[in-house]
Amino acid sequence: MKTEIKAILEAVQSGELSADEALLRLKQAPYEDLGFAKVDLHRRITQGIPEVIYGESKTPEQIVKILQTLRDSGQDNILITRLSEEAAAQIAAETELHYYPEGRIGMTGEKKAPDGIGRIAVVTAGTSDIPVAEEAAITAECFGNEVVRIYDVGVAGLHRLLSHMEEVMSASVIIAIAGMEGALASVVGGLADCPVIAVPTSVGYGASFDGLSALLAMMNSCASGVSVVNIDNGFGAGYLAGRINHMEAKS
Amino acid sequence: MKTEIKAILEAVQSGELSADEALLRLKQAPYEDLGFAKVDLHRRITQGIPEVIYGESKTPEQIVKILQTLRDSGQDNILITRLSEEAAAQIAAETELHYYPEGRIGMTGEKKAPDGIGRIAVVTAGTSDIPVAEEAAITAECFGNEVVRIYDVGVAGLHRLLSHMEEVMSASVIIAIAGMEGALASVVGGLADCPVIAVPTSVGYGASFDGLSALLAMMNSCASGVSVVNIDNGFGAGYLAGRINHMEAKS
Amino acid sequence: MKTEIKAILEAVQSGELSADEALLRLKQAPYEDLGFAKVDLHRRITQGIPEVIYGESKTPEQIVKILQTLRDSGQDNILITRLSEEAAAQIAAETELHYYPEGRIGMTGEKKAPDGIGRIAVVTAGTSDIPVAEEAAITAECFGNEVVRIYDVGVAGLHRLLSHMEEVMSASVIIAIAGMEGALASVVGGLADCPVIAVPTSVGYGASFDGLSALLAMMNSCASGVSVVNIDNGFGAGYLAGRINHMEAKS
Amino acid sequence: MKTEIKAILEAVQSGELSADEALLRLKQAPYEDLGFAKVDLHRRITQGIPEVIYGESKTPEQIVKILQTLRDSGQDNILITRLSEEAAAQIAAETELHYYPEGRIGMTGEKKAPDGIGRIAVVTAGTSDIPVAEEAAITAECFGNEVVRIYDVGVAGLHRLLSHMEEVMSASVIIAIAGMEGALASVVGGLADCPVIAVPTSVGYGASFDGLSALLAMMNSCASGVSVVNIDNGFGAGYLAGRINHMEAKS
Amino acid sequence: MKTEIKAILEAVQSGELSADEALLRLKQAPYEDLGFAKVDLHRRITQGIPEVIYGESKTPEQIVKILQTLRDSGQDNILITRLSEEAAAQIAAETELHYYPEGRIGMTGEKKAPDGIGRIAVVTAGTSDIPVAEEAAITAECFGNEVVRIYDVGVAGLHRLLSHMEEVMSASVIIAIAGMEGALASVVGGLADCPVIAVPTSVGYGASFDGLSALLAMMNSCASGVSVVNIDNGFGAGYLAGRINHMEAKS
Amino acid sequence: MKTEIKAILEAVQSGELSADEALLRLKQAPYEDLGFAKVDLHRRITQGIPEVIYGESKTPEQIVKILQTLRDSGQDNILITRLSEEAAAQIAAETELHYYPEGRIGMTGEKKAPDGIGRIAVVTAGTSDIPVAEEAAITAECFGNEVVRIYDVGVAGLHRLLSHMEEVMSASVIIAIAGMEGALASVVGGLADCPVIAVPTSVGYGASFDGLSALLAMMNSCASGVSVVNIDNGFGAGYLAGRINHMEAKS
Amino acid sequence: MKTEIKAILEAVQSGELSADEALLRLKQAPYEDLGFAKVDLHRRITQGIPEVIYGESKTPEQIVKILQTLRDSGQDNILITRLSEEAAAQIAAETELHYYPEGRIGMTGEKKAPDGIGRIAVVTAGTSDIPVAEEAAITAECFGNEVVRIYDVGVAGLHRLLSHMEEVMSASVIIAIAGMEGALASVVGGLADCPVIAVPTSVGYGASFDGLSALLAMMNSCASGVSVVNIDNGFGAGYLAGRINHMEAKS
Amino acid sequence: MKTEIKAILEAVQSGELSADEALLRLKQAPYEDLGFAKVDLHRRITQGIPEVIYGESKTPEQIVKILQTLRDSGQDNILITRLSEEAAAQIAAETELHYYPEGRIGMTGEKKAPDGIGRIAVVTAGTSDIPVAEEAAITAECFGNEVVRIYDVGVAGLHRLLSHMEEVMSASVIIAIAGMEGALASVVGGLADCPVIAVPTSVGYGASFDGLSALLAMMNSCASGVSVVNIDNGFGAGYLAGRINHMEAKS
Repeated sequence: MKTEIKAILEAVQSGELSADEALLRLKQAPYEDLGFAKVDLHRRITQGIPEVIYGESKTPEQIVKILQTLRDSGQDNILITRLSEEAAAQIAAETELHYYPEGRIGMTGEKKAPDGIGRIAVVTAGTSDIPVAEEAAITAECFGNEVVRIYDVGVAGLHRLLSHMEEVMSASVIIAIAGMEGALASVVGGLADCPVIAVPTSVGYGASFDGLSALLAMMNSCASGVSVVNIDNGFGAGYLAGRINHMEAKS
Repeated sequence: MKTEIKAILEAVQSGELSADEALLRLKQAPYEDLGFAKVDLHRRITQGIPEVIYGESKTPEQIVKILQTLRDSGQDNILITRLSEEAAAQIAAETELHYYPEGRIGMTGEKKAPDGIGRIAVVTAGTSDIPVAEEAAITAECFGNEVVRIYDVGVAGLHRLLSHMEEVMSASVIIAIAGMEGALASVVGGLADCPVIAVPTSVGYGASFDGLSALLAMMNSCASGVSVVNIDNGFGAGYLAGRINHMEAKS
Repeated sequence: MKTEIKAILEAVQSGELSADEALLRLKQAPYEDLGFAKVDLHRRITQGIPEVIYGESKTPEQIVKILQTLRDSGQDNILITRLSEEAAAQIAAETELHYYPEGRIGMTGEKKAPDGIGRIAVVTAGTSDIPVAEEAAITAECFGNEVVRIYDVGVAGLHRLLSHMEEVMSASVIIAIAGMEGALASVVGGLADCPVIAVPTSVGYGASFDGLSALLAMMNSCASGVSVVNIDNGFGAGYLAGRINHMEAKS
Repeated sequence: MKTEIKAILEAVQSGELSADEALLRLKQAPYEDLGFAKVDLHRRITQGIPEVIYGESKTPEQIVKILQTLRDSGQDNILITRLSEEAAAQIAAETELHYYPEGRIGMTGEKKAPDGIGRIAVVTAGTSDIPVAEEAAITAECFGNEVVRIYDVGVAGLHRLLSHMEEVMSASVIIAIAGMEGALASVVGGLADCPVIAVPTSVGYGASFDGLSALLAMMNSCASGVSVVNIDNGFGAGYLAGRINHMEAKS
Repeated sequence: MKTEIKAILEAVQSGELSADEALLRLKQAPYEDLGFAKVDLHRRITQGIPEVIYGESKTPEQIVKILQTLRDSGQDNILITRLSEEAAAQIAAETELHYYPEGRIGMTGEKKAPDGIGRIAVVTAGTSDIPVAEEAAITAECFGNEVVRIYDVGVAGLHRLLSHMEEVMSASVIIAIAGMEGALASVVGGLADCPVIAVPTSVGYGASFDGLSALLAMMNSCASGVSVVNIDNGFGAGYLAGRINHMEAKS
Repeated sequence: MKTEIKAILEAVQSGELSADEALLRLKQAPYEDLGFAKVDLHRRITQGIPEVIYGESKTPEQIVKILQTLRDSGQDNILITRLSEEAAAQIAAETELHYYPEGRIGMTGEKKAPDGIGRIAVVTAGTSDIPVAEEAAITAECFGNEVVRIYDVGVAGLHRLLSHMEEVMSASVIIAIAGMEGALASVVGGLADCPVIAVPTSVGYGASFDGLSALLAMMNSCASGVSVVNIDNGFGAGYLAGRINHMEAKS
Repeated sequence: MKTEIKAILEAVQSGELSADEALLRLKQAPYEDLGFAKVDLHRRITQGIPEVIYGESKTPEQIVKILQTLRDSGQDNILITRLSEEAAAQIAAETELHYYPEGRIGMTGEKKAPDGIGRIAVVTAGTSDIPVAEEAAITAECFGNEVVRIYDVGVAGLHRLLSHMEEVMSASVIIAIAGMEGALASVVGGLADCPVIAVPTSVGYGASFDGLSALLAMMNSCASGVSVVNIDNGFGAGYLAGRINHMEAKS
Repeated sequence: MKTEIKAILEAVQSGELSADEALLRLKQAPYEDLGFAKVDLHRRITQGIPEVIYGESKTPEQIVKILQTLRDSGQDNILITRLSEEAAAQIAAETELHYYPEGRIGMTGEKKAPDGIGRIAVVTAGTSDIPVAEEAAITAECFGNEVVRIYDVGVAGLHRLLSHMEEVMSASVIIAIAGMEGALASVVGGLADCPVIAVPTSVGYGASFDGLSALLAMMNSCASGVSVVNIDNGFGAGYLAGRINHMEAKS
């Protein structure tokens, strides 16, 4: 990874570059060339990992423009999160786009074929948590993971969760999604022996305080092996689960 | 219950009391005589229900004095909550007192014999919740309830809770006590079909915020049949459970 | 309750089932068959207890579908909470439904005849609390409880509350509903000698913080015998009150 | 009140002062001389109103020094609030001081004779609120008010409050002091027709959050005529009550 | 005030009433007859004090109905707060109503002629605080107080406040209204020697948290003589100021 | 600056003014004449510093009126912040106005030519922070500062920030604008050796709590030389940066 | 994993066990035998994974007792977290114990030899975060992970972090530990391409609110691949990192 | 500033360094050599700017060690903040140290002679704020600034502040320090035309919430030109004020 900066230095050594030119190059070169950062674009393209656009506050026009730029640089797999159905329709009128309405995700190019260590289980407490769950699930799928969905198995009806224990127990990573009191994370965390990513959701009313109660509960989980992402952050959970499911030794 | 005020009025009618004297008496008489409140002292004595002293900020001397006054009025069964071991020793040197160190409760007189509808199950998530649980359990026992203690069955080790399900399921009232994320209340609430009183505790650290996280989680319980009392309020839970366990038709 | 699992085991013993088949059955069987949970559906049908659908985020189409499924399984008494007038109209166009607009509750089938220990008093501080109160009252009625409504008796006009003391005092369970400073719960809790369920409401403005102030006040009630449910959770209070009002010894 | 600045101007007019000297004097003169502020010291001395020292973070030495300075300027009536027993003893060793241990107030000079419109009633919910109440009561007395103390009449035992209604109703100003859920302010505010000053206290535990719950409840009081001061601010309540009790027309 | 109950007792004494009838009468009689509460309606009518309706969540139809009922009982002076312009128009179509759009107050009958001790000064920090100020000012006027309005004199432009000091200093009561950091209350409180009622407003953005910051600042005012009402509670401040401005000795 | 009051005094000395007239004049004169405040209007006009109108809650009509008044007093450079596109169009129809839609700022007159010590760098973490950044940048420009904009250089892509370090390092003042976790302020603060003004924005979702998280993070910045203004307060940051960039010795 | 229950069933089939005995056995058998949970003890012993005791509120005597019990069941590798130096000394007097004072961890038995996928980097912002970091690092080491410690590289001195980028970039999992504004997590998360576990610490003062600010900042991290555990929860981070570092396919 | 990296490159060009050696050097060299950061140590020594040690959680031994290391590298001017009197005495026993007890600051070497643009005014609301003020003042002095102290001029006694207006108005930078309601910042900000740094302090009780109320108030200051640092962060304010007071053009 440090080859580019070394190449610059060798060019100086060989007289191809003056010290001044090298200094300029070092500044202009992507930061990662200096040894402290990754070359996002290149590595990703070779690995087929999609680029991600956070669609929340962007207009369809802006998104189309970014898509074009990324494709021009050779990146065809692009994920757009928090994309409304209307915006998706507008974008699809101008360029190829597959839209997943449940997870509010748009995608260009192909989903990466599953090549992770195992399966990712996406588990929700209620049916209202499903949009967040789909954001997580589709994200994970796009990044090359097999996903098993286990929805509406909140702890107030423990038998429903327990009847799916085999799928839960055989997962490599579990994403536990719940609003209200967020107890699902602790129960799943206590049963499972793999990493559990907890996602608090803004589902609930009154003292749920838009997900704060679930967030606090999950932070306090008495089960080991549980960590937490932001309220309603399905994408973040799906992305991190994918990273964990693709763990491998670095040479 | 309205007899005392009626007696005053009859005394006026019969000439025993003047209107002025009656007016005075009505004012001095306990408020409940007027029809809108219970005659605490009398009813309690006849029913053997103990009087309760909140010991937190009282000196041993003050407590001894209150005990004397209550006994003088015929009340022998007295519960003192939040009583430190040292204070209890000082009090015991001057008057009869049984002290329960785990629940920090002192008692004079006899525990009322169990005469409730069924058993009260006191369930805790961890071992650190036990002092609150004992405050609840001993309170319930003093008020004439049979109590079964099921401690350290937090949801992160679900099998421990499930292995006690028979005792839990056969209870009339369940007191679910937990700190940290307070998930126990939801899980127990989902399994049980009796009233569940949830007690958040200040057990935990960091984002437990001295019980606030558990309180919020319990308020948001997705299980029906769960209600919540103040953080660490074992007495309140035990007292309320006893009330529920003594439900009976009013004529 | 443990008969089904015992039956499976006896079938193995008698050779009717192989060990493998039994293992499969044990997994497929409802969790409660294994002894740690209640057989919701069956018990409820025989007891006439209605099933409950939380209508908040469900479309009329989804609700109609769930109604059909439940009825197909023999459940005719179904409660739908948080149901808007428009949604109710759409559902009623397709299937039998009784709608209570004040409490935003829809119901199919008959209200269960009152068979509880006593009456449930539903008390509110103001007129703005009435929708929550009706959610509680209708829920309690549907679950077989007699309900007495005492509305607009907030503590700032104490005489109004006191003039209803006889009804309050003769109740088996009291549901105290208030927003703003939530003081009603403490005053009622101090007067009554039955279980009191406090419901904070989001009524108020400014420092009421959408019910948080009332919730905190109620959690701190200096009166014994008071417990709290979530902000605006009329259903939860009505359901729990019904449970308490149907307390009976378990054999 | 504008006499001093007018005097300076007249001295200029008469030639006694040059414009430059007058400018200097105007700057050195107390700000209030210019017409926009009160001449604290002078008015107070003539009226016998005591000066107040907030003793919390001051050493006995510092307090003795301030006392000397004030006395040297002719002020003999001085109130020291939040004064510990030990500090009071140290001060009393060096100068005349009367100490009120319940309210943690020290005073030099004489209490001003009561000359207000009526009586100030200081009402508390519990016995733990008494130190705050005494701070309020003694402050009010020192500022020339008659005070009636009505302690331990919290709303959970409404009859105790109601049995003191005559004293409460005949007060000119009421100070309602309560921790926990702070409901006393609303109940008193609903009964009384005089200004009510509510003082939340840090009495309580768990969800009382050191007085925050009481403060919020009091801010939301549904009773008109109630305003709130800071948690445990007995002095502020007593001082304000005194001001109100000395209302008179300004010419 | 205790005459009615005494009359009942005398009627019993004289044989006019049986004890049973007296008991009934005592219960039906307004609570205040028993000595612990005021006879709102009667006293108010004789004094010309208006009745108040909180209009926030009421329909124009409901308000018209309440108006009728009150008038039928002889009460002609009625204040309706938090009344939108549209609702006011609808009500005015059916009954006499004067509407003050700035303060969102409707009134029937005449404003009570000023008969207080002095003037009430209503002071605001900014122009956005004026609606709350008008609610306070009109309320105070309706209750028989002379009001002086001093708007947009926030502490960031201190000279504007100081240029109105004479009006401020000559007031009997000051209502200080401010959002954002709420500093106005402290500055006014420091300058004035009369009671100051602080009203935090929801004016501001970001860390103003809808008035919470102003509320906390005002609670912490370092100036003596300041108390606080709820965020945006102009009515409460105006009403309380009126009470203070009508202080008089009770016989 | 103290000349005006001295002039009044000299007029008294010379007999031109009586003491009474002088007293009146002193009161009517702008407060700053007395020596404790600045003569805003005059100084500003001479210096070409624009007057600022906070447009948030003002109608176009009100703004037009204020513009007229200010111009009549000779002030032509006027900034209107938080001005919507529609309001701007309405105002522009009646009077000269330049509108900057990105920063929601309207301006009359000319931008002051840059005359500060150096350049102000406005740096944002994301693209959603740009509206706040433009409010800051345009404000600074209007007050006579050269501004360099460096947008979308959040710390999650550190190389983007580092590739602009030269511009950042050569700035006199840096405005660091970020929502979500607000880490940009600390990173910039650690790199720079000039004053850094941090602006938290309400950009984010879930646990960003409308900017509270960013605000708290920025308050805790481990980097020295960082201070914070209110959430989304681009104007405040731009104004303060301009002040710092115009530091000069006072004689 | 399902062998034990199958064995029970086969024993029934073969007549070794009656149905009743089998029922009893099924109940007594660890819950996980039924297929929905892991057999903690057995699996752990075979794998050499240590058992963990949370030492916070346990007496040395209690800990010694638990150690004995675990060893009796064959478990020799036991970790005790939150163990004070004094308690460790008392325990060491009675049984073999290795104590790590920096991380407040005691251990019996041998650290498991590193057998994970790669290295775990433990990174802290300041020196005050080191105790939490050591808790994480030692935990990870005890669970068979190689750990590299990179301390005191907070973002306010970015060059220190960047000079360690090679170690950071080559890690399999990163634990980012910071108090105050917690920006380290975002910066590390943006640079790294492996899972990042963020640990907020209670380091700081004022608006750090005992770690809340860092927690909120980390929850809002704009970098993907970051998740968060409780404040000061070094153990949880170390344990989870170890789990991720031991990811492998499940057959 | 980019000379060091250029020197490395020239050494490569000239053959003094191989590319590999240069790469190593670039990594080992301080980050700022690469062009994006300042060379702290060197620049500071030449400018006489002291190095700062945050003493809070460091032992005297640790501090002595750091002092030695810094001195060995040629840095003699070192500031130690949050240093207790006891720790200072221990350090002074081993090495030269001047201790300022009021500000809890220790210093080695000489205070830098004042060479800023103007004076820094340090203003406090009360006497309890003085320790924070002294931390700010001494810090500023050590960094070469003239400081004027104006203490105990809170807004509740506005005349005290106004009588010091000349000193305040003539300052280049003002540090406004206040606890409780923090109104001082707004008042000073409104009067001054220079940058104002507001420091909330934890002075107060009850609803001051350890400085949170003051912090929020200051964040909402309606005065332009005010920014805020952390609660009790006197050092940060003094350091930033010094930076602003040393503003100069960068070539």
